[in-house]
Amino acid sequence: MLKTALNTIMPIDKDWHNRAVVRTDNLIKPVGSMGKLEAFYAQLCAIQKTLSPQAEKRAVLVFSGDHGVIDEKVAVCPQDVTLKQTENFVRGYTGVCALAKQAKAKLFPVDVAVNAEIGIEGVIDRKIAYGSNNIRKGPAMTKEQAIKAIEVGIETAYLAVEQGYNILATGEMGICNTTPSAAILAVITGRDAAEVTGMGANLDDEGVLNKIEVVRDAIKINQPDPDDVIDVLAKVGGYEIAAMCGAFIGAASKGVTIVVDGFISTISAILAVKLNPNVRDYLIPSHKSREKGAQLALDVLGFEPPLDMAMRLGEGSGATLMFNILEAACFMGIEMITFDEAGIGVV
Amino acid sequence: MLKTALNTIMPIDKDWHNRAVVRTDNLIKPVGSMGKLEAFYAQLCAIQKTLSPQAEKRAVLVFSGDHGVIDEKVAVCPQDVTLKQTENFVRGYTGVCALAKQAKAKLFPVDVAVNAEIGIEGVIDRKIAYGSNNIRKGPAMTKEQAIKAIEVGIETAYLAVEQGYNILATGEMGICNTTPSAAILAVITGRDAAEVTGMGANLDDEGVLNKIEVVRDAIKINQPDPDDVIDVLAKVGGYEIAAMCGAFIGAASKGVTIVVDGFISTISAILAVKLNPNVRDYLIPSHKSREKGAQLALDVLGFEPPLDMAMRLGEGSGATLMFNILEAACFMGIEMITFDEAGIGVV
Repeated sequence: MLKTALNTIMPIDKDWHNRAVVRTDNLIKPVGSMGKLEAFYAQLCAIQKTLSPQAEKRAVLVFSGDHGVIDEKVAVCPQDVTLKQTENFVRGYTGVCALAKQAKAKLFPVDVAVNAEIGIEGVIDRKIAYGSNNIRKGPAMTKEQAIKAIEVGIETAYLAVEQGYNILATGEMGICNTTPSAAILAVITGRDAAEVTGMGANLDDEGVLNKIEVVRDAIKINQPDPDDVIDVLAKVGGYEIAAMCGAFIGAASKGVTIVVDGFISTISAILAVKLNPNVRDYLIPSHKSREKGAQLALDVLGFEPPLDMAMRLGEGSGATLMFNILEAACFMGIEMITFDEAGIGVV
Repeated sequence: MLKTALNTIMPIDKDWHNRAVVRTDNLIKPVGSMGKLEAFYAQLCAIQKTLSPQAEKRAVLVFSGDHGVIDEKVAVCPQDVTLKQTENFVRGYTGVCALAKQAKAKLFPVDVAVNAEIGIEGVIDRKIAYGSNNIRKGPAMTKEQAIKAIEVGIETAYLAVEQGYNILATGEMGICNTTPSAAILAVITGRDAAEVTGMGANLDDEGVLNKIEVVRDAIKINQPDPDDVIDVLAKVGGYEIAAMCGAFIGAASKGVTIVVDGFISTISAILAVKLNPNVRDYLIPSHKSREKGAQLALDVLGFEPPLDMAMRLGEGSGATLMFNILEAACFMGIEMITFDEAGIGVV
């Protein structure tokens, strides 16, 4: 199923992209003066094959999973916060819930590997395991489990698309998931753990030094192959990280736009693009997370995010802020008129 | 009238600000992890004196004026674009119109000094002159005219507030108004013209070099007093720049939030804060304009704008993108619950 999805991802339509660029260049404004809105408009036109793209049907896919590496004291809060926040997604109490409500976006919370039974209706049950294994001692999961987790993400994207959503965003909930994310980034870029490992959810300086050692050890003991995405995910990844990777693949294979959230989402996006470079065409960056390593991760994808919110919450919160900006880009292309239509010279 | 407005500007309520900070620190997220949204929420709480602030009643005040310095070849497009775009504000055709429609914001276009008669109903007529004088040859206007232009801005803010709008944004239309803006910034900061003068609406390299000379000459011939805002505005300013300065003062004196747009708006905001430092409490930054000098202007106010859109259009376009983000900040504070309410430990 992963293979089928990967094989159906087409590059976006160059012709529609060019037509959109011609239109924005002729709107009554100095050429290029609406900056990233112009780029988003052209990208949405190419994805949706129209000069009147829409950004109204919005969904946030949030994947939850736990991590065995919590035994290494890489988080300040207890593991059951993953469970409680996953349940709170249904209740509408968390950060992304508030922002999704403002943006009139539908939330899809998915349990991929929470280390407990979910005690509330409304979370999509796709549990593969009760958390990953401790990556400092061995692989996070088997390759089969990694593939299964990617497929959970693909299927969730398909579900949202079937329900009519055509602007998706990704998010995650998983206590200590900046640790596997840092490990993946170190492996993919060849950087030292110290360059990519940050404070996560308010770890102190001593905690960060310990976390760097944990990331270094995890890579040393597992020896993941940087050119084999499944190997990297299985050895130093996590279930929700794999699922987000799948969500990007699933959205791209259905020809649908998907917004990347912060540090952890960007790591998942890097892996998806490594599996098929065409995925890149469907991705929209959102914000520059304050987590260390975030800038490097953005650079790998060539992302220049439009938001600089000093956020580092996860859950898809930063991505959710992009929905209205993307709709503004659509309105720019649709509501503005060209110089010809206005009967004035070039501004 | 200006004096009355300046005398009625109160600092925002510290008690409500503190209560808002306590609430955001206790919401179910790591402390500080929602970054600038937390700061906006606290600011809106303090301005509106509530923990449930609103950002729904939105208006963009756009001031139009022409500039005699156009004779010095500092713009690539003809002066009548100011007139035509001002008329297009009513028709809904320009960049800010498209973004305001997406944000469900009301546009108030105001003619302060367009160098022609407006040929359409719907533009607020507050014309003081048919453009400023050429600042390379003498003062832009008299001190009386500068004060009158500030008062147009104050009155427009009052008008919007009377109509029930409580989240305002500013914008401008005035061919070659980056030239007086650069001159004001050079005077206020003591920097050389070359450090603050940019491409405006797509001036080429040779054009920018000429523009730098014009800015330098304007300062040399007029010798504005950097500590006297009215003197600076009268000598090297412009009517719409003065009016935006007034809009900030008017909003602050009515206790209403106002979003600053890009380079030119930020220059106006600097002048307003110089006239009364309490104005700063009511200002919200929006985006980092790509115009040279924009970063320096932001630094003067200590602004770290949440948007990095590569925009340089003006019209209030960048500020308009902030409305939904501010509403998201309100939703964060209102919809999220605290740790106590959730019955979980600190994340």
